[in-house]
Amino acid sequence: MSDPARPTGPADLDRSSVDLDSLRYDERGLIPVITQDADTGEVLMMAWANREALERTLAERRMVYWSRSRQELWRKGDTSGHVQHWQELRVDCDADVIVARIHQEGAACHTGERSCFFRSLAASEG
Amino acid sequence: MSDPARPTGPADLDRSSVDLDSLRYDERGLIPVITQDADTGEVLMMAWANREALERTLAERRMVYWSRSRQELWRKGDTSGHVQHWQELRVDCDADVIVARIHQEGAACHTGERSCFFRSLAASEG
Repeated sequence: MSDPARPTGPADLDRSSVDLDSLRYDERGLIPVITQDADTGEVLMMAWANREALERTLAERRMVYWSRSRQELWRKGDTSGHVQHWQELRVDCDADVIVARIHQEGAACHTGERSCFFRSLAASEG
Repeated sequence: MSDPARPTGPADLDRSSVDLDSLRYDERGLIPVITQDADTGEVLMMAWANREALERTLAERRMVYWSRSRQELWRKGDTSGHVQHWQELRVDCDADVIVARIHQEGAACHTGERSCFFRSLAASEG
């Protein structure tokens, strides 16, 4: 995902893969997960995961989150059928945010929209 | 950002633009901001904003975050020169996450990588 034109530097030493023990969970034991369409790059949703959710995500090859409102594991698609099959999971420089590149069945948003980000806050005229 | 093949439904009533008063900030007064390259769709970073950061973002047409570690406004690029000019700000269905589609000067990540998500947690062989 880096700029191929940029010279190789010390940051490249960190390009090794990361394991679940290296992630930094917040005081609730949660980490944000940004879910992105692997084909189009569209950001579909953001949700939260705890370590168990990530373990299940890895084992089942589909996205499993932690529902903060229901306080339980949330296997995305179990109710709606809108399962998310991940292609790649990436971690940021601080190891406290995940990007999941996925293939979405149906709609990501509970409203029926493909992406949860269907509303505009502001747009530049330029 | 919605699927054009999907029939028009009730969710389309919510397509109106959103203002800062309608956003849902967390117990710290913060909202997550996912920053995405407007041209390539690459997710560059995730940071946090409070209401003042968003007001400045709108007024200055560049990204201003809230630094949780420094507990102060963070005008991205003031130190590094890596300013982010936003093209569009989008809000999710729950009004508690923002996606900023931006034009990045230089690198988004403090490591020098273009994106903070330069490490892999897992990749599917399929």
